[in-house]
Amino acid sequence: MKGVAKSVNNIFYNAQHSPIGAFASFTLGFRGKNGGLGLELGKPADHNVFIGLQSRDGGCYEALPFFEQVEDASARYDVEKLDKREAEFQEVFPTAPGGNDRDKPSGWFRPSDTVLAPFRDEQISRELKAGTDTWQAGDLTLRIYSPVRSVPDPAAGDREALKAALVPAVFVQLTLDNTQGTLARKGFFGYEGSDPYASMRRLSDTAEGRFAGIGQGRLTAIACKDEGVVEALGFTMEKILEEGLAHNLAFGLGGTGALLMEVAPGECRTFSFAVCFYRGGIVTSGIDASYYYTSLFANIEEAADYSLQHFGELSESCCEADEWVGSAGLSSDQSFMLAHAIHSYYGSTQLLLAEEGLLWIVNEGEYRMMNTLDLTADQLFYEMLLHPWTVRNELELFVSRYSYRDQVRFPGELQEYPGGLAFTHDVGVANVFSRPQYSAYEMAGLDECFSYMSHEELVNWLCCALVYIEQTGDRAFIDQMLPVIRDCFSSMLNRDHPEADKRNGLMGLDSTRTEGGAEITTYDSLDVSLGQSRNNIYLAGKCWAAYVALERLFAKEGLAELSAEAGGQADQCAAAVTAALNDKGYIPAIIGEDNDSQIIPAIEGLVFPYFTGCAEALDRKGRFAGYLEALRTHLDTVLVPGTCLFEDGAWKLSSTSSNSWLSKIYLSQFIAREILELPWGDKGAAADAAHVNWLLHPELSYWCWSDQILNGLIGGSKYYPRGVTAILWLLEGKGEHRLVRI
Amino acid sequence: MKGVAKSVNNIFYNAQHSPIGAFASFTLGFRGKNGGLGLELGKPADHNVFIGLQSRDGGCYEALPFFEQVEDASARYDVEKLDKREAEFQEVFPTAPGGNDRDKPSGWFRPSDTVLAPFRDEQISRELKAGTDTWQAGDLTLRIYSPVRSVPDPAAGDREALKAALVPAVFVQLTLDNTQGTLARKGFFGYEGSDPYASMRRLSDTAEGRFAGIGQGRLTAIACKDEGVVEALGFTMEKILEEGLAHNLAFGLGGTGALLMEVAPGECRTFSFAVCFYRGGIVTSGIDASYYYTSLFANIEEAADYSLQHFGELSESCCEADEWVGSAGLSSDQSFMLAHAIHSYYGSTQLLLAEEGLLWIVNEGEYRMMNTLDLTADQLFYEMLLHPWTVRNELELFVSRYSYRDQVRFPGELQEYPGGLAFTHDVGVANVFSRPQYSAYEMAGLDECFSYMSHEELVNWLCCALVYIEQTGDRAFIDQMLPVIRDCFSSMLNRDHPEADKRNGLMGLDSTRTEGGAEITTYDSLDVSLGQSRNNIYLAGKCWAAYVALERLFAKEGLAELSAEAGGQADQCAAAVTAALNDKGYIPAIIGEDNDSQIIPAIEGLVFPYFTGCAEALDRKGRFAGYLEALRTHLDTVLVPGTCLFEDGAWKLSSTSSNSWLSKIYLSQFIAREILELPWGDKGAAADAAHVNWLLHPELSYWCWSDQILNGLIGGSKYYPRGVTAILWLLEGKGEHRLVRI
Repeated sequence: MKGVAKSVNNIFYNAQHSPIGAFASFTLGFRGKNGGLGLELGKPADHNVFIGLQSRDGGCYEALPFFEQVEDASARYDVEKLDKREAEFQEVFPTAPGGNDRDKPSGWFRPSDTVLAPFRDEQISRELKAGTDTWQAGDLTLRIYSPVRSVPDPAAGDREALKAALVPAVFVQLTLDNTQGTLARKGFFGYEGSDPYASMRRLSDTAEGRFAGIGQGRLTAIACKDEGVVEALGFTMEKILEEGLAHNLAFGLGGTGALLMEVAPGECRTFSFAVCFYRGGIVTSGIDASYYYTSLFANIEEAADYSLQHFGELSESCCEADEWVGSAGLSSDQSFMLAHAIHSYYGSTQLLLAEEGLLWIVNEGEYRMMNTLDLTADQLFYEMLLHPWTVRNELELFVSRYSYRDQVRFPGELQEYPGGLAFTHDVGVANVFSRPQYSAYEMAGLDECFSYMSHEELVNWLCCALVYIEQTGDRAFIDQMLPVIRDCFSSMLNRDHPEADKRNGLMGLDSTRTEGGAEITTYDSLDVSLGQSRNNIYLAGKCWAAYVALERLFAKEGLAELSAEAGGQADQCAAAVTAALNDKGYIPAIIGEDNDSQIIPAIEGLVFPYFTGCAEALDRKGRFAGYLEALRTHLDTVLVPGTCLFEDGAWKLSSTSSNSWLSKIYLSQFIAREILELPWGDKGAAADAAHVNWLLHPELSYWCWSDQILNGLIGGSKYYPRGVTAILWLLEGKGEHRLVRI
Repeated sequence: MKGVAKSVNNIFYNAQHSPIGAFASFTLGFRGKNGGLGLELGKPADHNVFIGLQSRDGGCYEALPFFEQVEDASARYDVEKLDKREAEFQEVFPTAPGGNDRDKPSGWFRPSDTVLAPFRDEQISRELKAGTDTWQAGDLTLRIYSPVRSVPDPAAGDREALKAALVPAVFVQLTLDNTQGTLARKGFFGYEGSDPYASMRRLSDTAEGRFAGIGQGRLTAIACKDEGVVEALGFTMEKILEEGLAHNLAFGLGGTGALLMEVAPGECRTFSFAVCFYRGGIVTSGIDASYYYTSLFANIEEAADYSLQHFGELSESCCEADEWVGSAGLSSDQSFMLAHAIHSYYGSTQLLLAEEGLLWIVNEGEYRMMNTLDLTADQLFYEMLLHPWTVRNELELFVSRYSYRDQVRFPGELQEYPGGLAFTHDVGVANVFSRPQYSAYEMAGLDECFSYMSHEELVNWLCCALVYIEQTGDRAFIDQMLPVIRDCFSSMLNRDHPEADKRNGLMGLDSTRTEGGAEITTYDSLDVSLGQSRNNIYLAGKCWAAYVALERLFAKEGLAELSAEAGGQADQCAAAVTAALNDKGYIPAIIGEDNDSQIIPAIEGLVFPYFTGCAEALDRKGRFAGYLEALRTHLDTVLVPGTCLFEDGAWKLSSTSSNSWLSKIYLSQFIAREILELPWGDKGAAADAAHVNWLLHPELSYWCWSDQILNGLIGGSKYYPRGVTAILWLLEGKGEHRLVRI
């Protein structure tokens, strides 16, 4: 994490640790009551997590700083000084009437004499990698292992492999080093769950002695089968630590649960834990679906048992991910951002099983929209590497339930022209599938955020399908989807211009779904430079890429006429964009509409030919040399401070907006370096360092990996899956156009 | 609600509206974001509820005040005055970085021009009855119907009757009177759900056209099948009301859902709604159980459909409850307290189905402990009237899973003596069943709150069983439980004294479960006067009642020797208490331990002979004349200001504690009037008025019916089921000892 211009050295940022496909996250790293075991949330669970060890002298307990401290120790003492009646009141009803502490059952809190303090900052170090997150403090070492691994297609039915990949758990090792100690010392790992519906509990009864565990309801749990580990419940962690009677550790009203260990003097012990998540039954509406893992594990006890029995292999697999990312020669800043992004991606993943079949859902971070298609087109590369069948699954759902046909209109006109097939922005939000043919997001009558993205999603679907086809050669998929792809092509043409001879390869008409509004792009919260679809050079780049790939696919499929037509559109599109390069050396964001913004994503579409078997289209001396040259010139022009660079060297996607998106920066960086051969050097390293600083903001790093950065501050698209575009960095310089990881 | 000394006239208190057995509550009445549709919560759901009507001039919308108002309308205007960049930031990211509004997805909020204002207080009136809660404001009338009805034993299998009694819904009628209006006016009923896991949704798709509805996930919904009602989702209620395009009312990201109606000028329309709750699948741990209603309704759509189809009968049944309570000749203060208590009782009820069979659970209000046995003994009378099979069900679970055997000890001694059968305090907490033979609550090593209640629960189980047997004559139950009852008797004797000839009918030894601590009573948060079990005259009264009833049962069952022994214990107990009447005219709370507290619950045990077929034991000229006379003298002595009356005439259970419990006051009032023939008059009416005032506190009435009142302020046992002891008031003066409602 060292960069040229790097100034921040904050290790107390949240990171997500998530099973694959469980829409769950053990989030940790930000100080205070700001992490925890979250299920289906668009944010951290915000509860106390207690991981610590008794001090060498036995006098207090030290813990990683992931809990809210008692505000003022003197308040404890004051209680005793109050007169009897007031003391009685304070003791029985510590919450002032009508106060904010309403959630706390009244009548039960008393101060504790036990001291539980966080380690001092300077005692703590941390290293985040793709598959592990390691903390060291005093005599304690904590390592969290997060699954980063290929997932076999469940249709192939290798149940054991699926269990290993999809067990709804992450794995934790806690090493307590008492080799320097002279007293037996108590260690602990626990939490104070925040599910509103069920209480904390001990798992030993239902686990039938296979392991010790504490958890909340049926949803979350921490389990361990190492010898001597004891389950405990109590009102607070302090109460648990000071409890003298074993009997009372079963106190059912305790909102805090912990596993307790003891390490003898002279010993160093490592304890292995499974941090588990489980939601049974139907969890969605619109389409009734359950978590796929419920077909592998009957309940959280089974998930915990499996995790502990296979702890070695499961955690080893996480280390292999460290190796995979770590050995690629990335800078430490790059490695950090990629690892952090991978952690957040999995937190949004959700593999469901419905009557209709499997459903792979990537929830949209804080927004929790499901399979937002413009995110799918960015997460595509990562998914192709790790589990290409999920891409097919996403594409199929869009065809079967979330496609529609529309008419189109020129701006400001009422006349309707044939449109064609298009796809919705998403398939629902927060466990609610939207109705067929409609997204949760899109509204009519708008020309900004929440308007329709018909053309953008049409092109996104095509780009994803064409990459998937080229990378997998999946014949069944091609046969099934070729009619759809032809419809898509026809739809693109209609959205260019109703008359063939007036087409220029760009989008020219808006969907009637907008009811008089105008379509927008994925860059919904930016200004017109990136937000408007029509005649936008960002969208043009994707159209060009789709046309280029369609030309190839149609040719391969013996559809020569279509191939030629697609090729012609590609040429027209490239020509139109190239022609718009002005004498100041850039291409205005919107062609022919008096817009003068300068945008980096002009180059974004170039990524697709790289993976659709069309690398020759990227040959800077080939057919599209002029287009590529124009884009390189454009990039050189805009990538300067005050235009598309912030003062600290960070990338600014549009010259006219201070809102910049990291996932898209990562993607454009790959294109700039690998395709447009932009030299990197100190300027590039400074950019990376500045981007790392965005993520390590002392307050906003609560939000784990986040995408939208407004003037250097995380401002939207928080807790977000999209940053895995950075996976492309691993492919740079290899001349390798395959997206298949063995 | 008029009382002699009544000063409060607050109509803005929360009341619960709950299906039977669904552990759910539509809570409403307290101003602001303080009510809503709550499932399995120990408190109101705390979300916005929108019930309103467009003003006659069409210029604004007026609603009942159950939502949080926009803080300051000028803040909207300020946004426009900010410079462009700041305005952009404010618009896109209204939440300050690191601020508290973390839960709100960023980037999407804009001010609205629509004015939604609460009706003025003086426009609003309200009337709460047992089965209905009626609000009138402007041209709007809202009536909420809450089920209060007999529930047939599911074992009898009348599916249609069970559906009617257990459908997880409450029923709402909204009358919009536009007879004086000249414009069509829009009405609305909606909410902004607070479930953390799933989004708001429209139900029409899944309801397949049977009705319109909005809801959150699979858990809560409001449905209506009246003509012209429109489903709407939006970021805010204002956004929904101002939306011009029908298309956009389906906006999936909207966290607020509402049903919209329109009433033509000159018309008055009444709309009928079902407010529904549903949680499918296994909901508990420890014992795996589902809601019983899931066997009657497959999902929330089916529950809504049934409710709307049978709206007439279902709401009529609620009105019959009004009639039942209303025709009993209670004062308005009494009627109010009884109705309010009934509302809160049902909010805690939960009927589950496990492999082991049916489980009737009453959760303990804010604490959510399950089937707390000392509450069961108070709720007994209500349950016997409405659904006696739930009492049997509760008793059976205690025998099969939540009983244990212990040893006993004299205070301060280590020597152990035979103890016997005892019952746990509860069977779990918040959907987590505790392990067999243990409660969630009880801890060892204590002599105060959270200690064991072995003897108290033993006697509670016996009293409940003996009332159940007498009232139902359930032969199968008697046959099954007679050995248990004999064990209980034996256990009581052992807890009195190990040597028969030294017994005095009082509890003398503590359970070894306390591990050196001391047992407590249900009055756990009071001082020793009521909190200590050993030699306590409150517990002695219950022991006496149990012995009296055992004497009778054993005789009837041909166990003459046991009968005589029980009778002897009853005599001893009565004699011991009677003998303790001192020359100041009261019986100290703890006999023989130098305690001088004066407590009203000395008389509490008298309620049981009234219903165990032992009314002759209450004959003030009969066998226990001395005991009864001593208690009446005691009551007369203590029921004076400064001792067991607060200054305003409210009852104070103990002279040495300012913590007084309403449920117990209600019970003792019945006993005082009906058994001890205490005259009521102005003094009694003043007490009732003072008790009403406790519940109508301007802030603490947020908590619906609550039990523990500390110095006049609701302080604990909030949102509580126990107040249905007041049902006994309906029986006064009838000489009727039957607890069976036809």
